[in-house]
Amino acid sequence: MRDYQIDMHLNTERKQKPAFDQLQFGRNFTDHMFIMDYSSEEGWYDPRIVPYQPVTLDPAAMIFHYGQTVFEGLKAYLSKEQQILLFRPSKNMARLNRSNERLCIPKIDEAFALHALKQLLIVEKDWIPTSEGTSLYIRPFIISTEPYIGVAPSNSYRFMIILSPVGAYYKEGINPVKISVEQEYVRAVQGGTGNAKTAGNYAGSLKAQEMANVDGYSQVLWLDGKEKKYIEEVGSMNVFFKIKGEVITPALNGSILDGVTRDSIIQLLNYWNLPLVEKKISMEEIDQAHKDGHLEEAFGTGTAAVISPIGELFWKGEKLSINNGETGPLSRKLYETITGIQTGTLEDPFGWRIEVASEVVNN
Amino acid sequence: MRDYQIDMHLNTERKQKPAFDQLQFGRNFTDHMFIMDYSSEEGWYDPRIVPYQPVTLDPAAMIFHYGQTVFEGLKAYLSKEQQILLFRPSKNMARLNRSNERLCIPKIDEAFALHALKQLLIVEKDWIPTSEGTSLYIRPFIISTEPYIGVAPSNSYRFMIILSPVGAYYKEGINPVKISVEQEYVRAVQGGTGNAKTAGNYAGSLKAQEMANVDGYSQVLWLDGKEKKYIEEVGSMNVFFKIKGEVITPALNGSILDGVTRDSIIQLLNYWNLPLVEKKISMEEIDQAHKDGHLEEAFGTGTAAVISPIGELFWKGEKLSINNGETGPLSRKLYETITGIQTGTLEDPFGWRIEVASEVVNN
Repeated sequence: MRDYQIDMHLNTERKQKPAFDQLQFGRNFTDHMFIMDYSSEEGWYDPRIVPYQPVTLDPAAMIFHYGQTVFEGLKAYLSKEQQILLFRPSKNMARLNRSNERLCIPKIDEAFALHALKQLLIVEKDWIPTSEGTSLYIRPFIISTEPYIGVAPSNSYRFMIILSPVGAYYKEGINPVKISVEQEYVRAVQGGTGNAKTAGNYAGSLKAQEMANVDGYSQVLWLDGKEKKYIEEVGSMNVFFKIKGEVITPALNGSILDGVTRDSIIQLLNYWNLPLVEKKISMEEIDQAHKDGHLEEAFGTGTAAVISPIGELFWKGEKLSINNGETGPLSRKLYETITGIQTGTLEDPFGWRIEVASEVVNN
Repeated sequence: MRDYQIDMHLNTERKQKPAFDQLQFGRNFTDHMFIMDYSSEEGWYDPRIVPYQPVTLDPAAMIFHYGQTVFEGLKAYLSKEQQILLFRPSKNMARLNRSNERLCIPKIDEAFALHALKQLLIVEKDWIPTSEGTSLYIRPFIISTEPYIGVAPSNSYRFMIILSPVGAYYKEGINPVKISVEQEYVRAVQGGTGNAKTAGNYAGSLKAQEMANVDGYSQVLWLDGKEKKYIEEVGSMNVFFKIKGEVITPALNGSILDGVTRDSIIQLLNYWNLPLVEKKISMEEIDQAHKDGHLEEAFGTGTAAVISPIGELFWKGEKLSINNGETGPLSRKLYETITGIQTGTLEDPFGWRIEVASEVVNN
């Protein structure tokens, strides 16, 4: 870890906090944020924790035109013993650098970024909500800031971490959502940016989501960009199916995001000795399994929602009801196990949970 | 056109202008910009011409995370008679709205946006350079501004127009560039955002461009995302080939940008009664034409560079030299004709050139 000094500029006045038992997702932000800048000459410099504040950029800043940007999402929890807990945060920092690589953004020092996050969390500890289903959502992101009209990597960047106390991502919470299988629009294709956490993937997904909403569906199930046949993701989540006792998730293929929750579920299922396979799986196979009465459960997985059960799939004019539109036992067990490990109420045989030391260590 | 009032807040002090005969592309910006905001309640409101100024946004503004944004690019010229000239600007405003549609951004009033642009150009008239190969590049763009962490269309936007006096986009100017045919990375696929002018397309293209640069190539030739077989675009331009007297350009297929320069060339070739075909064309066909000695010319087309001849294609370990690495007669004739129409030195049989009335008309 590089020996950076984090400058601290703390607010004496604090915002009024929202009611922690009625939190929406992503609408409230804490008193402080972490910032670090990059220039070609200095590399990453001037790490600082400062009051939450606007970003001021030249209108020609490259982020506004060419979208060179990456982000991450993870969560902090407060244990009953008032310990700040993180869940596999090194995985997020490592993925941030993989996204950086794809987007031609200079890499960050992962250990230092995690250190900086911990310092920010200590400062903002009383923003961590503890009601059932709540957490402090953490959004690290990097934007390109050089004022230049021309398609090339930027020479300057800003890395920021902002924090938001959140409730459930979907208003349905752990209740099943209805999903439409997308036939026209495509999220990503091999050789594109699908396995990087970058803005363009999300911008491109809005249209399909909007049209699904009109038809009464929460999200879309994305098929592959080549043949529109194989399952990739659901909304902005990875997806799992339980068919005849076996759990199946699409294998990572370059266009699917390597989700931290996805990986945790795979490890959990292996730990439980439940059959799990990562493979290329077509929508036809899911439909056939449904027709045969073998499609037992389906669910999306991601940091924001953790587990989001799928109660219905709409495909080619047919409605495929899954587990009578109810949350299945595996979905519920996974949700309870992962959130239990995350919040400190369950044993963590994997060493996934990180306790943040309670003192600011500034080096 | 909606009856908006454009508020004018003009600077009394003006910036020092760069030397107009040594202009780089996209590095200098004029004294003023146009801004208009959008809210769900008010629609597009508060159109204004103001001093060129930074954009101040909440760090949670959606543009930084989910890339919901669109842009356009066009140019203004000053005729020998000191008339401000635009080239088919309605095409750009129409495409901006097509991009808006794909990105779930509320549409603008195209006629009003063009009116606003004209007013801005009148204010900034003395920023229009007149040296050979220079122009005033115009960048209209819309960014999503709502502070919200969650994948959904924004409820607020900002539309801006900034202006930059520019020289040649490529340092090679009208001289041929060397292009590497991209085998790994993909720009776009049907169902994605390839035919919209949106940030993510450009962010995703940086990696391939960077790797091509390392190997001594200016840009990449993009193949289709499904089979990596058919030609799509070159760099951020459309592409044309002249084979055995016939001009061929990839047909619009949903993943290729519908370029204004591309359309102008097609119309020009038809006007000249030269054989022109829009079709799906594979890299194998280009290679075969080269082997047979029939590949006469190749060139990229776009607003920034107008015509950019291709002197060499690198594909599967082989270097395909085109027209001995020199600018071909058709490339040159197209460049001279289009820039001649644009700058007012040639007849415009198509009615493409628009003269901007010299008085500010504010309504």
